[in-house]
Amino acid sequence: MAKSEPVNYKLPSGFDIELLPGERRLEIQVMDTIRAVFERYGFAPIETPCVERLEVLQAKNSQGESSQGDNIIYSIHPILPPDQPGEADKDSGSGEIRALKFDQTVPLAAYIARHRNDLVFPFARYQMDMVFRGERAKKGRYRQFRQCDIDVISRGDLSLLYDAQMPAIIAEIFAALDIGPFLIRINNRKVLTGFFQAIGLAEEKIKTCIKIVDTLEKVGPTKVKQELETLGADPEQADQILTFTQIHGDADQVLDKLSHQCDSLGSPEDFAQGIEDLQQVIQGVRSLGVAADRFCIDLSIARGLDYYTGTVYETSLVGYESLGSICSGGRYDDLVGIFVGEKMPGVGISIGLTRLLRRLMEAEILKPLPQSPAQVMVVNLDPELMPVYLQLSQQLRGVGIGVLTGFEKRGVGKQFQQADKLGIPICLIVGPEEYAAGQCRIKHLGSGDQIDVPLEAMVETIRQQLGSGE
Amino acid sequence: MAKSEPVNYKLPSGFDIELLPGERRLEIQVMDTIRAVFERYGFAPIETPCVERLEVLQAKNSQGESSQGDNIIYSIHPILPPDQPGEADKDSGSGEIRALKFDQTVPLAAYIARHRNDLVFPFARYQMDMVFRGERAKKGRYRQFRQCDIDVISRGDLSLLYDAQMPAIIAEIFAALDIGPFLIRINNRKVLTGFFQAIGLAEEKIKTCIKIVDTLEKVGPTKVKQELETLGADPEQADQILTFTQIHGDADQVLDKLSHQCDSLGSPEDFAQGIEDLQQVIQGVRSLGVAADRFCIDLSIARGLDYYTGTVYETSLVGYESLGSICSGGRYDDLVGIFVGEKMPGVGISIGLTRLLRRLMEAEILKPLPQSPAQVMVVNLDPELMPVYLQLSQQLRGVGIGVLTGFEKRGVGKQFQQADKLGIPICLIVGPEEYAAGQCRIKHLGSGDQIDVPLEAMVETIRQQLGSGE
Repeated sequence: MAKSEPVNYKLPSGFDIELLPGERRLEIQVMDTIRAVFERYGFAPIETPCVERLEVLQAKNSQGESSQGDNIIYSIHPILPPDQPGEADKDSGSGEIRALKFDQTVPLAAYIARHRNDLVFPFARYQMDMVFRGERAKKGRYRQFRQCDIDVISRGDLSLLYDAQMPAIIAEIFAALDIGPFLIRINNRKVLTGFFQAIGLAEEKIKTCIKIVDTLEKVGPTKVKQELETLGADPEQADQILTFTQIHGDADQVLDKLSHQCDSLGSPEDFAQGIEDLQQVIQGVRSLGVAADRFCIDLSIARGLDYYTGTVYETSLVGYESLGSICSGGRYDDLVGIFVGEKMPGVGISIGLTRLLRRLMEAEILKPLPQSPAQVMVVNLDPELMPVYLQLSQQLRGVGIGVLTGFEKRGVGKQFQQADKLGIPICLIVGPEEYAAGQCRIKHLGSGDQIDVPLEAMVETIRQQLGSGE
Repeated sequence: MAKSEPVNYKLPSGFDIELLPGERRLEIQVMDTIRAVFERYGFAPIETPCVERLEVLQAKNSQGESSQGDNIIYSIHPILPPDQPGEADKDSGSGEIRALKFDQTVPLAAYIARHRNDLVFPFARYQMDMVFRGERAKKGRYRQFRQCDIDVISRGDLSLLYDAQMPAIIAEIFAALDIGPFLIRINNRKVLTGFFQAIGLAEEKIKTCIKIVDTLEKVGPTKVKQELETLGADPEQADQILTFTQIHGDADQVLDKLSHQCDSLGSPEDFAQGIEDLQQVIQGVRSLGVAADRFCIDLSIARGLDYYTGTVYETSLVGYESLGSICSGGRYDDLVGIFVGEKMPGVGISIGLTRLLRRLMEAEILKPLPQSPAQVMVVNLDPELMPVYLQLSQQLRGVGIGVLTGFEKRGVGKQFQQADKLGIPICLIVGPEEYAAGQCRIKHLGSGDQIDVPLEAMVETIRQQLGSGE
């Protein structure tokens, strides 16, 4: 075939999220594990399209908060086919701008607005969709990636027990993924806000102050103190804040210290309420059986986003803290109702799967699976016997075993090699003589062991060899 | 909460593919079924990003054929956040246009070009990604939809047995989905081309002629004859073509008639080769055990796309032919190698899942699942007992049962109602007295039956009640 005009077939920068088949098989396995945990807690799947109206994505709540943050949104525009000039996109005449979603939260709010009469509340849903962010591409930063989110949304009040359930779900997922010890760090924004108010920080500075505190782990205490003072905190306040966010100990010790601090500040209502909420959540987490070494209270955790109003979570992988938070989220009381003008508090968590998986593979904590999901290769020894090979293949598939039939005319050695490269553990070999004798040979590529069995015992023998791996 | 500026939260036209949770659960079930069949035949999963360079999507092979057809492609462009004017998308300075993929075939070709050194060939892969087409929106036509595709791609020759395997896979999928009888219609473009050449149709008219024949079922023979004559076929040729495409009977009868026709036309080489190929494929389909009433040869099937070079498939649901083809595909010898200038023949099929699922639900052939994946609701009878409710919930989850714990303070009747609306079959009821006596009540909402059992027998009793549904 003549080579056409050379085309640059590389992926655009930031979209290089493509996995090899064995890596993608691992990703699907991980997604199945996550999904199973979500479903055990009663979360139902939804999926929203990649495209929404831009005004939906940029919607703000009554506090002027949106979930856009610094994210750059992609709009989409139809390109006419080269041979169809003149045929225009009629809908765009409406002037409506269509754009790719950059998170799952705003689309969830829109989904609920669109379908609220068909949903049962509290509405617990999970979503594992792709999101798109037009940010500057950096290593480990993608412009398209998959987020695995759960959220519970209520009309009216939403029990704090839903907040307590999130760490249990996180713990169950990361235990099931078997990627080593992890630590779920829990905080409550009301505790931070209440404390900042109590030490006399001006109301309009509190959100910025929370964002500064959130960078503590990244930039260290000296920088945080500097930034707090730049913001207008006096040195004493800055010291108080630093001391406060560094309170440590097990959850009970931290709650105890918080109570004392609250008393010593004259028990201001908001601060006291925050502590009370945090306490309830911790109690729930314990009742749900989350091991004591899997969670803690960390008063420096705040999450960057404006819209969180209560509980917040981050999760780090012990020994791999540089990976950053592998699962984060929190409570937001005023975001989901924006489209319908109704109070709809919610709480949720999110796993940035694309980035997490890539990093777990890089750190060799998770390893790709073989390229092929087949477990048996039926070797093509004699093309005359192809009808037999096809029937044997179907027999194995009939009991749920993945099979690759050798269609190519290659030497047996080449076929073993192919099976080996694909990660197929077993080869089934039937030559004319074996077939005439009603026999077949089953070869285990890993060990090199092979046995001859009657054809009618073939399926059962292979099943046994695959054992629990089947 | 004060209502913000009213935002139109409806989905943009053509993107209204959103499903309710029970419908999405059905979609996932269907996808799992399809995926299991793909994997039993050794197809490995991949996923390519939604975004590629436009020049990749519009690439043509040496025959000037692309898979774009009439599809309008969406390009993407970064929009700056409202509060960050001035911060531009640096990458777009390269002038490279980025666009959303409109099918899986061209991205597969690009994927293979990008990763060919890490893949084992023949490369059998499946993909269930979203694609985007900027066409005029019509009822039942979407601008974003999911396609479930498999393709086998080879370097060098690709055995016709891969073509034979496709109908076996189609048959297994639709049998597993249990949506009633279906018919796989098989043809070979070489047969059509060979015949058209043999009756003296000019070479440059053959592709158009194939497209006209492909509309036979839709527009009827009179219109097809007219169009053939408009194209420049003389009335006798038009008649011959119509008679030819309407040859019917079982596969052997059709092959027989084709052989006679070929003989009577002096056995032209291309025609004879087409018949030989078709025969081999049919033989393979039979050896793979596809039932005789599930497939046929239909000489009017051609598929609209230019790039098919051999076997082509369509599948119709018997009694629901108006749904159109529910699974189509074919052999293409000159498409996948375009980026690397190498011959890489392929054969594949595609299920347009978004449209198919919607139509199967509309026709009530498939019904949505309940909103919730939970199978048990732990009723909140006494908030004091919440730690007990949480522990019982975790016990059930521990054996893989989905549980919703009642966190709201609602009457028991309301909680039953909620469980019922969510489609949760079983409620677990523990009041203070029951708890003190070490007992619990298990209520089956469908039948209304309830039994009291000791707490230690709870998990086992519920497991049995859920039976195979678990």
